[in-house]
Amino acid sequence: MLNFILRKRQLGLALLVSLLAFSGSAETLKEVAKKRGLTDKDLLAAAKTYTPSGKKDEYLVFSSGGQAGQLIVYGVPSMRLLKYIGVFTPEPWSGYGYGEVEGMHRLKEGMIRGTKITWGDTHHPALSETNGDYDGQFVFINDKANPRVAVIDLKTFETVQIVVNPIFKSEHGSSVVTPNTEYAMEAAQYPAPYSNKYVALTQKNFNEIYRGGITYWKFNREKGRLMPKQSFTVELPPYMQDITDAGKLISDGWSFTNSINTERYIGGFGNGNTHLKHKLANEAGMSAKDTDYMHIVNWRKAEKLFKAGKFKKINGHAVISMKDMVKANALFLLPESKSPHGCDVSPDGRYIIVAGKLDTHATVYDFKKIKRLIDKKDFAGKDPYGIPILDMQKSIHKQVQLGLGPLHSQFDKEKGIVYTSLYVDSAVARWDYLKGKLLEKLPIHYNIGHLVTAEGDTVNPDGKYLIALNKLAIDRFNQVGPLHPQNHQLIDIKGKKPMSLLYDMPLPLGEPHYAQMIKADKLKPVIRYKKRSFKNYVRPGKERVERKGNKVTIHSTAIRSHYSPEVISIKKGDHVTWHITNVERAQDQTHGFTVDTYNLHASIEPGETVTLKFVATKSGVFPFYCTEFCSALHLEMSGYLLVK
Amino acid sequence: MLNFILRKRQLGLALLVSLLAFSGSAETLKEVAKKRGLTDKDLLAAAKTYTPSGKKDEYLVFSSGGQAGQLIVYGVPSMRLLKYIGVFTPEPWSGYGYGEVEGMHRLKEGMIRGTKITWGDTHHPALSETNGDYDGQFVFINDKANPRVAVIDLKTFETVQIVVNPIFKSEHGSSVVTPNTEYAMEAAQYPAPYSNKYVALTQKNFNEIYRGGITYWKFNREKGRLMPKQSFTVELPPYMQDITDAGKLISDGWSFTNSINTERYIGGFGNGNTHLKHKLANEAGMSAKDTDYMHIVNWRKAEKLFKAGKFKKINGHAVISMKDMVKANALFLLPESKSPHGCDVSPDGRYIIVAGKLDTHATVYDFKKIKRLIDKKDFAGKDPYGIPILDMQKSIHKQVQLGLGPLHSQFDKEKGIVYTSLYVDSAVARWDYLKGKLLEKLPIHYNIGHLVTAEGDTVNPDGKYLIALNKLAIDRFNQVGPLHPQNHQLIDIKGKKPMSLLYDMPLPLGEPHYAQMIKADKLKPVIRYKKRSFKNYVRPGKERVERKGNKVTIHSTAIRSHYSPEVISIKKGDHVTWHITNVERAQDQTHGFTVDTYNLHASIEPGETVTLKFVATKSGVFPFYCTEFCSALHLEMSGYLLVK
Repeated sequence: MLNFILRKRQLGLALLVSLLAFSGSAETLKEVAKKRGLTDKDLLAAAKTYTPSGKKDEYLVFSSGGQAGQLIVYGVPSMRLLKYIGVFTPEPWSGYGYGEVEGMHRLKEGMIRGTKITWGDTHHPALSETNGDYDGQFVFINDKANPRVAVIDLKTFETVQIVVNPIFKSEHGSSVVTPNTEYAMEAAQYPAPYSNKYVALTQKNFNEIYRGGITYWKFNREKGRLMPKQSFTVELPPYMQDITDAGKLISDGWSFTNSINTERYIGGFGNGNTHLKHKLANEAGMSAKDTDYMHIVNWRKAEKLFKAGKFKKINGHAVISMKDMVKANALFLLPESKSPHGCDVSPDGRYIIVAGKLDTHATVYDFKKIKRLIDKKDFAGKDPYGIPILDMQKSIHKQVQLGLGPLHSQFDKEKGIVYTSLYVDSAVARWDYLKGKLLEKLPIHYNIGHLVTAEGDTVNPDGKYLIALNKLAIDRFNQVGPLHPQNHQLIDIKGKKPMSLLYDMPLPLGEPHYAQMIKADKLKPVIRYKKRSFKNYVRPGKERVERKGNKVTIHSTAIRSHYSPEVISIKKGDHVTWHITNVERAQDQTHGFTVDTYNLHASIEPGETVTLKFVATKSGVFPFYCTEFCSALHLEMSGYLLVK
Repeated sequence: MLNFILRKRQLGLALLVSLLAFSGSAETLKEVAKKRGLTDKDLLAAAKTYTPSGKKDEYLVFSSGGQAGQLIVYGVPSMRLLKYIGVFTPEPWSGYGYGEVEGMHRLKEGMIRGTKITWGDTHHPALSETNGDYDGQFVFINDKANPRVAVIDLKTFETVQIVVNPIFKSEHGSSVVTPNTEYAMEAAQYPAPYSNKYVALTQKNFNEIYRGGITYWKFNREKGRLMPKQSFTVELPPYMQDITDAGKLISDGWSFTNSINTERYIGGFGNGNTHLKHKLANEAGMSAKDTDYMHIVNWRKAEKLFKAGKFKKINGHAVISMKDMVKANALFLLPESKSPHGCDVSPDGRYIIVAGKLDTHATVYDFKKIKRLIDKKDFAGKDPYGIPILDMQKSIHKQVQLGLGPLHSQFDKEKGIVYTSLYVDSAVARWDYLKGKLLEKLPIHYNIGHLVTAEGDTVNPDGKYLIALNKLAIDRFNQVGPLHPQNHQLIDIKGKKPMSLLYDMPLPLGEPHYAQMIKADKLKPVIRYKKRSFKNYVRPGKERVERKGNKVTIHSTAIRSHYSPEVISIKKGDHVTWHITNVERAQDQTHGFTVDTYNLHASIEPGETVTLKFVATKSGVFPFYCTEFCSALHLEMSGYLLVK
């Protein structure tokens, strides 16, 4: 307390000193620009992005952390990284997965077939929506490698749930939410048997036993959790399902999912110990046909089938067969240029833009036309699984030549304007999907994958900013070894001016696949916890150590700058439950906690109570201490765990 | 290849389109500044930090990643994060600790008493030095929680070694290198018995059995490794050793280490099940005396004792006793203001600046005076362990009142000028340690811990930039939940102008404790590997699967965009060794690799061969795929591992 008062007084003095100091400065902008080799355009870009101390960003971006298994949060236009959130990967800074029971439970939820999976390949974050607009409450993110979906609560910015897909062996088109977050969708990628059994990879088995699918995970907003028992999967052919989008407004109730291997090519290139030798590589065999299929699902009808019990249980999970879906007039295929990626529904819900990486065109489908064909049962044929195929030409509004490698589209505030990433061109195309006209192209560095515009996949896009999620950095930054950072480039798309590049942001960890950008003022995070909301809250003065047999429960508090109790003696073999309440009230006054050698770490935010569990497997003297620099006497915030 | 040619052609077109587009821009800097509320000072700061696409940073900062257990690399003045390097924490993006044998071996090296420790509390990075100047070859970083030191090779920016301190149970004053990187030093923090046995925490035991110490890890520059058998520890009293610095030039051969609990207070606050109840908390008990001790060690003499066999082995490690050190006239104590943190040797090696957090002064010791007292054996007394104590007043050059909570000092290019962080004031003091005069104070937000200036702890500081490593962010950034990012603030210290704040950089992961800033052009990292430098290199066309009993060895290659072989059938229980060579030559053309459910992930940089090892414990169908977006047909870069 004394420190605090002194600090405030001194701060005033220091400020005064500083103001006087500043007034002596005589450098001009021109001089600095000349010295640093900045052009007028550079200065303009600097002014559009520079965010002085204490000023806030207008947007927050939630970006997948790629193979880092985390979620990344950064601000726009400053492009400053604000937080890496541990999702599938244990993260010691926040105490996620290092003995603290909540995190340990999360990672346990994410176990597959008895294996603890300690990372994920996060791909597509999805902000929760209300009436097709981001509401700032939750983010969902998937793991492509080990098919799972996680829920992050935006009150705390913490992962609150991981669900394992019970039947997929890989996924990709996830997470995507329906307009009122009724469901978080998860589409399979590499087909495999739904069972966990070995099934030889023959063409016959692949066609008949290997399967794709889309899982519709029911979301309960009040509980903030996905509800596995209320969720179901729509069985799909062993085409490799890809990016998915939910219909909205006039297409609400529908979902659209690309695919990339309707050839059902099973690979076998190289000379492994396989019956399949000297074949084409997948990249060629899977791109043999000119078109693949968009899967069109009427998920409201699927939901009805599920509720009516029209499913079978596989691995304890409800699966609605293709047959039943077809019978219910709820599943269709629509040809699209081969190997597409982006499948993006326009803000009004009417158009679906498909960007096929091997076609120079983007295709604009008209949902009204699609719906008319469906309603009239005007089908062009059926696929080998009996799924009706719609006629491509009859479904199209426009096809527009954009350039090489169209990949993903996001929308502008201005009606009809869309931005599409061009992977091979390394460029962003701005075009009019209503008129079918390319307006402008801006080069980026290098090889853009997804892109994101401000609220660009909602019913109400903001325009303003576009970020190119580039796959390569090459020469953009100082070299930091053979493994390069990624490069997210901020682009100004305000008004009717030409697009202009504002900022290159290296991503220091992970290869983000997709991101969403939300108005910052929609987020209302908690900044400190209510102590009494934790059932194991330890009241100051009531700290204690309790023993029942070999079960030891420690009730501790932490405050600047000591733990209570400081010295704890237990016995080897004891099962320890350690509750620690941070009794601080000041924002950001986090305390950390670790015990030497026991691989434990907790981050305890103001008001929070954490619980760590471990078995005292080793005897000896183990210092514990606060790992978050909390005061001038932070180093003294320590104690000893003595294990006899 | 076709893609590449097409891409180049299209890029030219795109550039043209863009140039035309830019020329239409009519916004002025004034308009933008007004709209965004930027002052002239803000614009100046923006111009000093904004780094256009493709321009490089002048300095790189190597910052500890705190409890994230990693090392952070960022650029100055852009303050952009370039890389998180996995050190003590497994890191899936770079494939560190997910089945790839090098990383697995590293984490195994870091095991303590049979426990795999999967994180660390990294504190003080130390760049390797030649003649007291950074040479850009290696970085050392410590783990305070589980006493260990790691070596990162700056050719690859990868962790190449972890050594476990065999006798400490905690450490802090590490890593610090001697001027030619003869040794990396590691000072203990919380005293404990050197053995791993339980020793009750009584005052008698604490005084007689609990110990501190400094380990001098011998570094072999050619091998790029610390050499445990050529390393030794100097036994020290159970004072809590703290920050350490190595002497240089006239003080070369010496090291200086603060301490914070010469009271030998053993704590016991709170009412745990301990014999120690109702005592003062550590923070009070450990701050009872007005002074603590700087430990002064003549490490060249200690090295001679070690080479002469004057040590005993504890846990297999050489420990030189205090008694032998005293006898050799190689160990001394020097009073310093209580609970100090920074202990910083001036560029010329003559002065040692100690910043004591509970004293408003910084103390400038004169090594010439110290050396004279030592040479004349002019001691003021002895501590309870028989270590000679030097007279404080006779050792001091100046004491200067700076403000509240002086913590750490770094030097300027200009002779006599030093910058000291003031934790409680939340300010940086610029002062003259030769004349003993405070020159200027600049407020920072909030509560600065360490600070770093460009090459500021070498024999040849650059001045120019200072970074305040702040402990709290509070209201500086958009709120992202109760756990806040940290805030590194960049400060302009060029020339004789007043200091000015340039940039607030949030740190999204970890609480960095200390950092070093090196001229970027000193670093010469590898950007791609020589294929033949890997003994398990797989030559294209020679891919194969070999079986010996239940041992299966897979020799694979990866190139845009396929693996060879693509389909691999093995049996449950097989022990798999999987070599994969990335045969790309292009910079940044990394491929990733994962197998569903098996918790495996590798990042394979151009030219690199990685080896993964695992046991096929589960039968079934497991897709594998490339996790790094590598081409337009990246999604097709996949295969199946079939386990019968």
